[in-house]
Amino acid sequence: MREIGAVVFPGFELLDYFGPLELFGMHKDAFSQVVLAETTGPVASTQGPRVAVDRTLAKTERTDILLIPGGPATRHEVDNPELIGHLARLAETAEIVATVCTGSALLAKTGVLDGRRATTNKIAFDWVAGFGPKTDWQRRARWVEDGRYVTASGVSAGMDMSLAVIARLLGEEAAGNAARWAEYEANRDPDHDPFAPDA
Amino acid sequence: MREIGAVVFPGFELLDYFGPLELFGMHKDAFSQVVLAETTGPVASTQGPRVAVDRTLAKTERTDILLIPGGPATRHEVDNPELIGHLARLAETAEIVATVCTGSALLAKTGVLDGRRATTNKIAFDWVAGFGPKTDWQRRARWVEDGRYVTASGVSAGMDMSLAVIARLLGEEAAGNAARWAEYEANRDPDHDPFAPDA
Repeated sequence: MREIGAVVFPGFELLDYFGPLELFGMHKDAFSQVVLAETTGPVASTQGPRVAVDRTLAKTERTDILLIPGGPATRHEVDNPELIGHLARLAETAEIVATVCTGSALLAKTGVLDGRRATTNKIAFDWVAGFGPKTDWQRRARWVEDGRYVTASGVSAGMDMSLAVIARLLGEEAAGNAARWAEYEANRDPDHDPFAPDA
Repeated sequence: MREIGAVVFPGFELLDYFGPLELFGMHKDAFSQVVLAETTGPVASTQGPRVAVDRTLAKTERTDILLIPGGPATRHEVDNPELIGHLARLAETAEIVATVCTGSALLAKTGVLDGRRATTNKIAFDWVAGFGPKTDWQRRARWVEDGRYVTASGVSAGMDMSLAVIARLLGEEAAGNAARWAEYEANRDPDHDPFAPDA
């Protein structure tokens, strides 16, 4: 049983977060889900709906799969040293560190993506890349796996990235089942990126 | 400005709910989002994460777009006369009533789908159809629009259904933009249903 420590901050993007949690949630026997935040009160998404917090980041010593969503609010959160500090600390010992969309800016800011391949959403690409000058940013990729760091492109790409993580941890059949049960026409090819600038 | 009254109940399915809210949320100038439930406390999804409630159903006189997700818990909620009563009442005056997955069982139970075309998810199809014996259930459909009633197939299909509603209300360009900004490879053809039993 692995714990998904899914981080929220005010203004997070709904689908970056709940798309992956839907698909991991198809295998409840393998993954538990914990909503992590700096504070205990409900955290509002950029769209409006608020999620209740299960545990603060400060009280979280370790989590197995660290999930970091994006959203317009990452523009503020990259300058939040408390949040970046918690992400840096949890990334050190997590089995998998997964980002979606501009969540990769927050992870890049910790420095752990230095020397690694990564991607991010295609509209805010250059802004994100600026936080990881030593990262080998991939402009055409649905998602990128570099060891335990798995970075997805924009919003919906987090679902395809999650299936890749499920396949790695539980096997291809488990990933295929998660997609089928969600009636999701998955993109299982990390190089298929119709949203890349040259696509 | 239209209000999306998005209903939750304990055990709702995350992506049924947040997939549509992500895409509607791309047009904040056109749609506001309100989380509706029977009770005021946070409501747990079937996957675990809990959503905070903005307003009770009892205090909701009317909403513009009534969104009803599914999830395994619909098996209990079809026998919850308070919830079904609220859905029946709000469906009467809503501009659009949209269901995802087994959310259509709840709507069928109100009787408003009698004599109308509708669909639902493909794994629980026969169970759902039993709640609407006078409904013309479509076994092969990504989503079905019959007047103001718009019913989607399983889980992810709610996103394609949402784009159809956005296209109807705001135009094709707005729907295309919502998908593109979310890097979502949309299925814009309601008859393309790779999850239908004969597909």
